[in-house]
Amino acid sequence: MTDCALCRDDGGLLLWRGEGWRVVRALGAEVAAAPAWYRVIAAAHVAEWSDLPPAGQARAMTLVTAVERALRATLAPTKVNLASLGNVVPHLHWHVIARFDWDSRFPAPVWVPAQRGDDALRLAALRERLPACDAAVVQALDALSITPVQENPR
Amino acid sequence: MTDCALCRDDGGLLLWRGEGWRVVRALGAEVAAAPAWYRVIAAAHVAEWSDLPPAGQARAMTLVTAVERALRATLAPTKVNLASLGNVVPHLHWHVIARFDWDSRFPAPVWVPAQRGDDALRLAALRERLPACDAAVVQALDALSITPVQENPR
Repeated sequence: MTDCALCRDDGGLLLWRGEGWRVVRALGAEVAAAPAWYRVIAAAHVAEWSDLPPAGQARAMTLVTAVERALRATLAPTKVNLASLGNVVPHLHWHVIARFDWDSRFPAPVWVPAQRGDDALRLAALRERLPACDAAVVQALDALSITPVQENPR
Repeated sequence: MTDCALCRDDGGLLLWRGEGWRVVRALGAEVAAAPAWYRVIAAAHVAEWSDLPPAGQARAMTLVTAVERALRATLAPTKVNLASLGNVVPHLHWHVIARFDWDSRFPAPVWVPAQRGDDALRLAALRERLPACDAAVVQALDALSITPVQENPR
């Protein structure tokens, strides 16, 4: 579906692609206040979670769990937030977001207006660690031994 | 943990309780604009999804999927939203929320300020259908043949 942003584009910095799914780190203004924001995105244009067969659901949560574990091990966030909303882009994708008690929305969900100003120093320090976090995410996903798609080598 | 709201209270209208989990419909001002809001709540005080063993994760998503299917069959929502955040109450719980293109936040997440006024007639009609939706949720969960906890008969 060429009118679907997640059929057309990767939806972020592409980190990994396996059978039926890809994992990206989200980029841009949308994630400026919570930049340790990853997405596990279905390859197929499916809207609802319950449209997935059980094997696809199990695969998705295996990937979500691996990403969450990599974020926890690398960044020690206050909390990890998981969400599959899809109101704007009804193409199944899981948000996996490391939250910190100093981030400008915490403890509210990332989508609300800021509760306080950004902590520029901590935010800059977090951004510096994102490449290492990306690498940990890739390593965790590779360790799952899911067949990578050959046309997208890293 | 008596200081945890989801250890102390059901967290909504209790619909079902099975091995390790309960399902409630959320109540109160928090869900006034999107009242078809259900929660799948861990019995144990666990904060993060990746702290659950694989069998617990599989059980949780089986329940979430069953609730989502019941909502779709009963209410035909524009979209179902799933989320496990836990920033305020770090006790694992999944939100399963039927969203409608006329609701006052759509297509934004339910947690943002209203984008428009409530559609009072449609909201009243939705509220009238919630008991039937509750019954469909219970029926879907019972059909999973998960051992109910005997001390909480419906």
